[in-house]
Amino acid sequence: MPLTVTLPLEAATRLAVDLFVSLGMREADAAASVWPLIDAESMGIATHGLIRVPAYAKRLGLGGIDATGKIAVARRAPSLALVDGGNATGTAIAARALDAALEMAAETGIAYVGCRHSNHCGALMPYGLKAVEAGYVFIGGTNASTTMPPWGGAEARIGNNPVCVAAPIEEGPHFLLDMAMSVAARGKIRAAQAAGDRIPADWAVDVQGRPTTDPAAALEGLLSPMGGHKGSGLSQAIDILSGALSGAQFLSGISSWLDHPELPSNIGHFFLLLDPGRLIGKAAFSEAMVRFRDLILTTPPADPTRPVRLPGQAEQERRRQAIAHGMTLPKDLIDEIKALAGQKS
Amino acid sequence: MPLTVTLPLEAATRLAVDLFVSLGMREADAAASVWPLIDAESMGIATHGLIRVPAYAKRLGLGGIDATGKIAVARRAPSLALVDGGNATGTAIAARALDAALEMAAETGIAYVGCRHSNHCGALMPYGLKAVEAGYVFIGGTNASTTMPPWGGAEARIGNNPVCVAAPIEEGPHFLLDMAMSVAARGKIRAAQAAGDRIPADWAVDVQGRPTTDPAAALEGLLSPMGGHKGSGLSQAIDILSGALSGAQFLSGISSWLDHPELPSNIGHFFLLLDPGRLIGKAAFSEAMVRFRDLILTTPPADPTRPVRLPGQAEQERRRQAIAHGMTLPKDLIDEIKALAGQKS
Repeated sequence: MPLTVTLPLEAATRLAVDLFVSLGMREADAAASVWPLIDAESMGIATHGLIRVPAYAKRLGLGGIDATGKIAVARRAPSLALVDGGNATGTAIAARALDAALEMAAETGIAYVGCRHSNHCGALMPYGLKAVEAGYVFIGGTNASTTMPPWGGAEARIGNNPVCVAAPIEEGPHFLLDMAMSVAARGKIRAAQAAGDRIPADWAVDVQGRPTTDPAAALEGLLSPMGGHKGSGLSQAIDILSGALSGAQFLSGISSWLDHPELPSNIGHFFLLLDPGRLIGKAAFSEAMVRFRDLILTTPPADPTRPVRLPGQAEQERRRQAIAHGMTLPKDLIDEIKALAGQKS
Repeated sequence: MPLTVTLPLEAATRLAVDLFVSLGMREADAAASVWPLIDAESMGIATHGLIRVPAYAKRLGLGGIDATGKIAVARRAPSLALVDGGNATGTAIAARALDAALEMAAETGIAYVGCRHSNHCGALMPYGLKAVEAGYVFIGGTNASTTMPPWGGAEARIGNNPVCVAAPIEEGPHFLLDMAMSVAARGKIRAAQAAGDRIPADWAVDVQGRPTTDPAAALEGLLSPMGGHKGSGLSQAIDILSGALSGAQFLSGISSWLDHPELPSNIGHFFLLLDPGRLIGKAAFSEAMVRFRDLILTTPPADPTRPVRLPGQAEQERRRQAIAHGMTLPKDLIDEIKALAGQKS
């Protein structure tokens, strides 16, 4: 068993902020860069949590991400904005875009914000949670460097682009769906490789397009999209909304942060907000969503010991636990973050 | 081989309009009700084409759909509207909602329209095609009566709710993704039953939740969602955007048109439009989408005889053929539509 340490959210935030500040980032930008990673970690989404801090730091050190990149919001219409991320951290860019969307939606009841010149923005669920806590229905997406073939193809030209759809539910849990388009996440294959495990044969194909159970061969090869042409098509749809519509790169135009950490990714993201209060009214929507939640949660389960749950319910429970009792993290990771910031472990 | 007849789109439209008019519908409402079915048929989406005309007629006759239902559009904000369908045909309601969305998006660059008190609205691709032909990026969805369990459940509480994402591409084909959330469509199971074929074991489960290859047992049982929790979650997300946000029914609150053709369905739909001209500009978006198309279409194929295609490309090719050479339809179906309208076959 690897050694772990348990840290309050604030302490983990401090460590990551200190590292980014040590790499030339202003305190406020570092805070904006870090909260989506901490929130994801608190939800148990470890693949998009603190583990990304050294990865971002490496790119900040190499100039692949600009520690002093300027984020510019251009309002194009009362409900439309484009964000030029200036190659800052993707998390800070996405956080700023969400703030712009929240401002516009408060005025007009609807908002679309597209981001270009951005980088990896972490998991989408933290942004979705922030939006629903403000009372909005949320659709968010991002593109990513290519890891899958389009349906029928033998070369990686589409990313495993996630989409998040979220809606507020009074007294919770909120509806928080955050899903990528592959059968399994690349992070899970990396985790299997680190643990020395094999993977199921439907997760990925090797470089020649053959199904493989070897994580190393899978990481050299391609992820398989869920539902075949459906996951392939949905990945492309998210890419259009994230990349083509915002002026970012898309498909194989995106630079891989793994292969070229020193280059800007020019990733795109988008956030869409809708205000239920301007549609059927806050009270009617709240009542509908409570009924929605109860219909899902009271579905007779296939396995009586495993009740049916809402998307994101487990993540919200883990977050509540993390806020109350701290987050359990690998000691190696904490030591690495401290060492990178020039601190003693 | 069943007998077929080949009809121009106009002639098929005329037959269906005549039937709906014979059931008390005004000519203009009948035309609005029919075009999405004809367009779907022309695209080769036979499950959502002319075959729906007798089904709609049955419900019009029983009062489940109101031939004189009034469709009311309520603009709630410059970019937001709600449509009360008044239990008219779902196709006429959705067509009206799309028109309202196109008007608002022309003014503000973005629009969301939600529909309630609606019925089955056919396939989404015809609406997506109309939107992209007007230059917009389109997201559309509808809910449907329950045919699947939420992930981990043993009872049907979610619909096989489709989503369509579409984007214009100069000189085409346009990007037109229209996908439902099950591994396979219920219509495909009905078609297998009609043809006396068995179905693959991963398409559906029987009433006790066991995989089945018998189409009859599958139709009594439940469809299986693609990607497990992912398809289940996405179905719920589309239901929230279609039903909860518009004031329509959702989940198991929707009345099944198969079990209760005499009752209003109170289905919900939504359309979301974005104007690329107000974001990165018409020319830049057009250039991006041409590059997007070319990157997909030039992907080396896994099978050299089967080139990679864009979502909706085959449907657009079939539509071009249908416009040029007519649509080939089962003679029985045409005879049935004529007979229902009191015409000789």
